[in-house]
Amino acid sequence: MSEVICLDLEGVLMPEVWINVAKKTGIAELKRTTRDEPDYDKLMRYRIGILHREKIRLKDIQKVIGTLKPLPGAKAFLTRLRACRQVIILSDTFYEFAEPMMKALDYPTLFCNFLNVKASGYIRSHRMRQHNGKEQSVRALQTLKFRVRAAGDSYNDITMLKAANRGVLFCPPPNVVKDFPQFQVTRTYPALFKALTDGR
Amino acid sequence: MSEVICLDLEGVLMPEVWINVAKKTGIAELKRTTRDEPDYDKLMRYRIGILHREKIRLKDIQKVIGTLKPLPGAKAFLTRLRACRQVIILSDTFYEFAEPMMKALDYPTLFCNFLNVKASGYIRSHRMRQHNGKEQSVRALQTLKFRVRAAGDSYNDITMLKAANRGVLFCPPPNVVKDFPQFQVTRTYPALFKALTDGR
Repeated sequence: MSEVICLDLEGVLMPEVWINVAKKTGIAELKRTTRDEPDYDKLMRYRIGILHREKIRLKDIQKVIGTLKPLPGAKAFLTRLRACRQVIILSDTFYEFAEPMMKALDYPTLFCNFLNVKASGYIRSHRMRQHNGKEQSVRALQTLKFRVRAAGDSYNDITMLKAANRGVLFCPPPNVVKDFPQFQVTRTYPALFKALTDGR
Repeated sequence: MSEVICLDLEGVLMPEVWINVAKKTGIAELKRTTRDEPDYDKLMRYRIGILHREKIRLKDIQKVIGTLKPLPGAKAFLTRLRACRQVIILSDTFYEFAEPMMKALDYPTLFCNFLNVKASGYIRSHRMRQHNGKEQSVRALQTLKFRVRAAGDSYNDITMLKAANRGVLFCPPPNVVKDFPQFQVTRTYPALFKALTDGR
């Protein structure tokens, strides 16, 4: 049991935040994801620019995020996993966004990033804790003599999955499956649970 | 909020496991702690030897641990802390002992050690994940660009408290206070909460 499980958040346990912000605000430009713009820093600057233009404050986004529910079955999956393994969520999101999602998931441990917010309530900028934080977290856990199994759904999880002792894809888009045939593909929570624990 | 809080388990959130095992089994020799024998490896081999002699199996100890409740106020303190900070429990205990304690605390993330258990149910030996695991964990979190605040109650927490960006003692024995005057001493959960969060 010397294992830690690292899980991506959006797409694995929760719906995609920005797609829902785009829907609720009616601003289609916010649908742009890392699939369209692989440079996450550039993508975030683009999103923050749009929020300013549209006069959307942090608390407006938090309100949308507060309406998001875990993906069907995600909460039960995570609860079951935490009862038998140490779990850390590794996400490119921001603590300022994550709070209602963590509450919905009973406060698992989360390693993610930060926002700089102006006194006026507008987001000034984002701050990545470090470059390639997901992979770095897996490697740090390995220096603590843990074996790591990791699960994610998309391109921004690949370095994490590669660094882990076992990497698993969950409901990935077809191009990710094609590009990274080395990872087991799971499409249900029971299958993901089994891949992460061997059923033990 | 780029902070992770590291907490010792026994003495900070839960009662001391071995003192309670000693009480429930009536074997006074099991009361020996790191205060009497600072070499934890030696102490654990001594304890495991006594368990063999007295024919006490892992499941007997687990039964005792299952009766332990968090220290009064500990659960509410931890719940409040997890709602505003990332928390990791750093303990010298073993996952095989910790499970009922983690359940009682709503499954916070725990970094600890392992037991080798014989098919007969007796503990064969203990396995420390690594030397000085608490300090190593703090340092690994710092490589992930987290600031770390840590709290513990006794000598085996000192290297962790020293490595942390801020170290806090919680209900320490008088000799620890005397030997390490550099650490803030707290004696209630509200005071500990404030020391770990600055009330923010």
